[in-house]
Amino acid sequence: MPEFRSEPRVGVWLIGARGSVATTVVAGCAAVTAGLNAPTGMVTETPLFADTGLPSLSSLVFGGHDTVDCPLPKRAEALAAGGVLPHGLPSALSSELTAADREIRSGGPSAGDTRDPDDLIDAFTTDILDFVRRHGLARAVVVNVASTEPTPTGSTLPPSSLYAAAALRAGCPYVNFTPSTGLHHPALASLADASGLPYAGRDGKTGQTLLRSVLGPMFAQRSLTVLAWSGTNLLGGGDGAALADPAAAAAKNAGKERVLADTLGRTPEGETHIDDVPALGDWKTAWDHITFDGFLGTRMTLQTTWQGCDSSLAAPLVLDLARLTSRAHEAGLTGPLTDLGFYFKDPVGDGPPALGDQYAALAGFAERLRELQGEGNAR
Amino acid sequence: MPEFRSEPRVGVWLIGARGSVATTVVAGCAAVTAGLNAPTGMVTETPLFADTGLPSLSSLVFGGHDTVDCPLPKRAEALAAGGVLPHGLPSALSSELTAADREIRSGGPSAGDTRDPDDLIDAFTTDILDFVRRHGLARAVVVNVASTEPTPTGSTLPPSSLYAAAALRAGCPYVNFTPSTGLHHPALASLADASGLPYAGRDGKTGQTLLRSVLGPMFAQRSLTVLAWSGTNLLGGGDGAALADPAAAAAKNAGKERVLADTLGRTPEGETHIDDVPALGDWKTAWDHITFDGFLGTRMTLQTTWQGCDSSLAAPLVLDLARLTSRAHEAGLTGPLTDLGFYFKDPVGDGPPALGDQYAALAGFAERLRELQGEGNAR
Amino acid sequence: MPEFRSEPRVGVWLIGARGSVATTVVAGCAAVTAGLNAPTGMVTETPLFADTGLPSLSSLVFGGHDTVDCPLPKRAEALAAGGVLPHGLPSALSSELTAADREIRSGGPSAGDTRDPDDLIDAFTTDILDFVRRHGLARAVVVNVASTEPTPTGSTLPPSSLYAAAALRAGCPYVNFTPSTGLHHPALASLADASGLPYAGRDGKTGQTLLRSVLGPMFAQRSLTVLAWSGTNLLGGGDGAALADPAAAAAKNAGKERVLADTLGRTPEGETHIDDVPALGDWKTAWDHITFDGFLGTRMTLQTTWQGCDSSLAAPLVLDLARLTSRAHEAGLTGPLTDLGFYFKDPVGDGPPALGDQYAALAGFAERLRELQGEGNAR
Amino acid sequence: MPEFRSEPRVGVWLIGARGSVATTVVAGCAAVTAGLNAPTGMVTETPLFADTGLPSLSSLVFGGHDTVDCPLPKRAEALAAGGVLPHGLPSALSSELTAADREIRSGGPSAGDTRDPDDLIDAFTTDILDFVRRHGLARAVVVNVASTEPTPTGSTLPPSSLYAAAALRAGCPYVNFTPSTGLHHPALASLADASGLPYAGRDGKTGQTLLRSVLGPMFAQRSLTVLAWSGTNLLGGGDGAALADPAAAAAKNAGKERVLADTLGRTPEGETHIDDVPALGDWKTAWDHITFDGFLGTRMTLQTTWQGCDSSLAAPLVLDLARLTSRAHEAGLTGPLTDLGFYFKDPVGDGPPALGDQYAALAGFAERLRELQGEGNAR
Repeated sequence: MPEFRSEPRVGVWLIGARGSVATTVVAGCAAVTAGLNAPTGMVTETPLFADTGLPSLSSLVFGGHDTVDCPLPKRAEALAAGGVLPHGLPSALSSELTAADREIRSGGPSAGDTRDPDDLIDAFTTDILDFVRRHGLARAVVVNVASTEPTPTGSTLPPSSLYAAAALRAGCPYVNFTPSTGLHHPALASLADASGLPYAGRDGKTGQTLLRSVLGPMFAQRSLTVLAWSGTNLLGGGDGAALADPAAAAAKNAGKERVLADTLGRTPEGETHIDDVPALGDWKTAWDHITFDGFLGTRMTLQTTWQGCDSSLAAPLVLDLARLTSRAHEAGLTGPLTDLGFYFKDPVGDGPPALGDQYAALAGFAERLRELQGEGNAR
Repeated sequence: MPEFRSEPRVGVWLIGARGSVATTVVAGCAAVTAGLNAPTGMVTETPLFADTGLPSLSSLVFGGHDTVDCPLPKRAEALAAGGVLPHGLPSALSSELTAADREIRSGGPSAGDTRDPDDLIDAFTTDILDFVRRHGLARAVVVNVASTEPTPTGSTLPPSSLYAAAALRAGCPYVNFTPSTGLHHPALASLADASGLPYAGRDGKTGQTLLRSVLGPMFAQRSLTVLAWSGTNLLGGGDGAALADPAAAAAKNAGKERVLADTLGRTPEGETHIDDVPALGDWKTAWDHITFDGFLGTRMTLQTTWQGCDSSLAAPLVLDLARLTSRAHEAGLTGPLTDLGFYFKDPVGDGPPALGDQYAALAGFAERLRELQGEGNAR
Repeated sequence: MPEFRSEPRVGVWLIGARGSVATTVVAGCAAVTAGLNAPTGMVTETPLFADTGLPSLSSLVFGGHDTVDCPLPKRAEALAAGGVLPHGLPSALSSELTAADREIRSGGPSAGDTRDPDDLIDAFTTDILDFVRRHGLARAVVVNVASTEPTPTGSTLPPSSLYAAAALRAGCPYVNFTPSTGLHHPALASLADASGLPYAGRDGKTGQTLLRSVLGPMFAQRSLTVLAWSGTNLLGGGDGAALADPAAAAAKNAGKERVLADTLGRTPEGETHIDDVPALGDWKTAWDHITFDGFLGTRMTLQTTWQGCDSSLAAPLVLDLARLTSRAHEAGLTGPLTDLGFYFKDPVGDGPPALGDQYAALAGFAERLRELQGEGNAR
Repeated sequence: MPEFRSEPRVGVWLIGARGSVATTVVAGCAAVTAGLNAPTGMVTETPLFADTGLPSLSSLVFGGHDTVDCPLPKRAEALAAGGVLPHGLPSALSSELTAADREIRSGGPSAGDTRDPDDLIDAFTTDILDFVRRHGLARAVVVNVASTEPTPTGSTLPPSSLYAAAALRAGCPYVNFTPSTGLHHPALASLADASGLPYAGRDGKTGQTLLRSVLGPMFAQRSLTVLAWSGTNLLGGGDGAALADPAAAAAKNAGKERVLADTLGRTPEGETHIDDVPALGDWKTAWDHITFDGFLGTRMTLQTTWQGCDSSLAAPLVLDLARLTSRAHEAGLTGPLTDLGFYFKDPVGDGPPALGDQYAALAGFAERLRELQGEGNAR
């Protein structure tokens, strides 16, 4: 007769823990756990992931690093005012938000900080390990959801890479949901290999690129020649301001264009703009204009306008990824999780670029976890 | 040492042989054969179909039924004036167009025609068999590309079903590229079974529904809840006028909505309009507006505007289908060709509704043909 | 030396007083009066109307007829949940909403009501006169903001005309903000003339038609030939359901098409659809597709997508019109107020159809009021 | 009894005489004169300009400067292939195109040209005067339709200003249809004044800015607060390449943004992009996204997509302007023609910014010409 064993708790350590995405992750996990909202947008809550041994949403404990001070409950109120969170939710979940806010450490480096990179990595590692110990966690995963940083030009490790290195030192799986460097720095390659930790990334595929990853294959499969693919993104919020920096935008756009090149087999004409429009707040409008040739050279056009809220689109994917990488770690999987390309603009490994094929790979991953789970239960 | 054997010739008998689609099929096949244009939009010309034993484009011979008189060369000139065919093409291909025009028979029934359905089927069958004999064809396929007819209300066979029955009597594979009844009539079900002929259909997927067959799966795979999917189609040409008839539009829209229901797992709110706008000529604009819920119930929107030329989109698919069903016939395949769902709004059989999965099924079909071809060569 | 005289109070009697527009009118007037919001969208609050003697917003008292029971504070909460009113506003203004709700009478006729039209008009008149007396109002204006009713087919007065007749009997200026019949019924023509009351209408121009009234003149002034103008409106809320009735939609579309015919000098090809999409709530999306010919017959296209909230667009115009017709009454103006065509799809009288010219006419109207005001002060 | 006097001939000297716009101007004038096409897009052919004494289209003689060699008939064939001119038109008008081509001089300076600015102006002046003399013209107007040049940084006269100075020296009215400097150079200001010549400009308003000049006033008149106005222009052809140069784009965008600032009374958030998309050829797609606040701060959106052919939109306006400035010169009008703001993004003088008001000003100008014409006839 099986005795009752409480489910082990799993930490989710968010880099950028007071940003819009992180706040939506924390509030959303609590809202779904409390039955206030459906888990819309979470693939791990669909039948595809039944019996795969994923940690439950109620077992997740949140903490993280951030350089800003605005407490999570206040940030959540601002998001509710902007239509990202339902009105009333922040007050209903104030204890969960306050609890997560207590687990946020200041990160860095801040201005005047004289610590060298190794000191910083050590300090971040200590923060994560303290978090794990404090809560008696079975494990923790580190997820980067901070604002996009400019593409680094020299050999110095950018902040995202310092946090990624700390994840490795702390023995935590790592997910890079942004286009920042993170583990992609040459100085971290052998460390990542040696760590035996699973990792995933990079740059969450939430809107325009999600669309491109189904439209690109459509044109390719129909043998229609795409001549030009132009795009404009309008967004406010912190992300709009960060991406108004051409260097940060370049990092973002590389991922967007990779999807086109990989699915079309060639790079079409056309540019992609990212404009900071503060009036849009956390909402984003992405317009794409595609010129293609049909039979006998007849010129045709497809236009798409996507109006979404990036934090709402990103948060369920972040929860998915935290659960998946935690489970992968538990199951002893190591290295790049190629099967998670479904979630990313610029995925690690050599997975397929079309969303449908990526979904099939994800289904295969679920099947693998299910089998491992069965073996585990059988033992 | 193999001796030279000239490739057998294959007939393509078009119902609606003087319409825009048929004219583009005939002109396009000749243009690609002559090296004047690339085979853009033809999937059978991609590496996917290498060594599958498809009849070459140069082996195709065209004929068909139509109730209108305008000769193909003149129709082609009109299409060139409307931007559907390249300028200069009709005159460059006048001998091919004239040759095909000579093979067009008047069809029917016309006003005052006293022949009963069986007489008509016999007359059509004779036309097809004469065509096969006259040209010494190895086989012929019948493809319906006529204007959409209203959904029939009684038990009388509508014209599209008379032509389909004639295809069976003549021993020809049948493709229904329109939403008209064709072989889908209850009175033809057992005949189709007994014939042992392969057939495919129904309603070519060229624009708005093509898009829906990749966007619907995207929402489903991402677990985003589609609340409403509204659409408006503006089109001129004969198709616009035919579909301004609500009964004909109903037939067309059933297919469009089936794709949504099948890929989303539910039927969202929203209507689909088809407007006759003569000023648009053979060009079509399709606007779709999709309202969906993301995480925590955040409401978002996707809009698409597709501006295409239906004849240019349809013609390469018709050529694909003619080759594929001819080859299927040659290879002894029978009954509904479920693996060709890639081409249709409302496919025969129980294939998958998502375009990506349909493409995989088509690739499987190609593989099967390739194996049969290998066996054939080995003998 | 002038003694202090408090400003006389003016009644605004709303037909459809518990609908979205009426609720937004009452809440919005209170919010602007209290300094909580700017008077965005109110032309009477711009310098154009300085010193024209309009009643101040704080002098307005609201009441009206409605056949539904949901009290205004509750309706306002629902609008806030749908993003039409700012969160927190309904509770901040609960006393004003409750006060207006107390002044709403049930209207009719309800099911089983045996009163004949004249009885009903009398009952409505009494309601209005009681309202005026109860509050010691200098005057009251009646504004129809009820859901669009089907175009009447017989000679019976439809409800909107019963209310309009009551306005005349009560000696009140009348504004028809809807496409319903109201005063446009032949049986009311001579009554309206004899009443000596000013009136305005019909069908507020808030979105798609507003756009058409500037785009139509643009094409005309540039001598570009508009061939087709197609439109689709998606809307939820009560209005969506009401207009899903083809007869009601016909009334609405007549106004939309009048603007095109009047500004273009001809009626282009194309239809206008109104779809009920409950998921959109009080929000409306209107897509227009315009095909036009340029020099040498070059075919070009303009598309517009308007995403607005009809109640938010209508409410400031209703407040404008209540103030303007009250002032017109005070100033002794009578009959159709042709200069208010700026506000309507299908304006009374023979004013110009282009928005710019209508704005000029409105400016002339303001000037006239200013002069009358000057004369009044001079006395 | 009046004797027959043949109408005097008027020269139109085009800077950029072998470009798309110039070619369309020459071909279009001939096509309309020959009755092959209607004068769509020409305001001077509407009743507004009846009896105003404008030179007839058949009286216009074309010549100009260009640095490229491709002869007009060949350029016209390329435009017909791209859908800008009707097929068959170039061959039907080959004699007119050849005649105009003979009147094109090479302009400059070319590489290695050692002439100083004054020499160049003299050479250009001589070219113009020779043209006038050769054809016995009553007068000639100079119109700049060359590719946009980068905003000059130093005090040197850019090429557009050299041509403008030549127009003054030759005693010709001058129209700047581009955003290039032309007469707007400080070094030319006193010359322009002293010349006593009428002039107009700058930067023809053909698409996105035309729309903005009616939409901006709409928002302002309705007291709706525009928060952000973002735009993206996709265009190929020579113009796309020229404007891919950020300095040239800056010149163009200044005009676009001036229209917004002038009509809205403030500069909203948002950027305007100009992308070179060679696949679009002479066609342009302009997407605008406007975020505005309605009553009680409700956030709404308007999007427009304009798909036009710039040359077809520009050519009839260039013909209008050539006729209008020729007539102004004949009538003795001098200096900036403020009443022609209808045609320009960045008009000379202090005219109104709204298209409707500009049309009224143009009507006033027509009336003035009509009166002068009446006086002239009376003499």
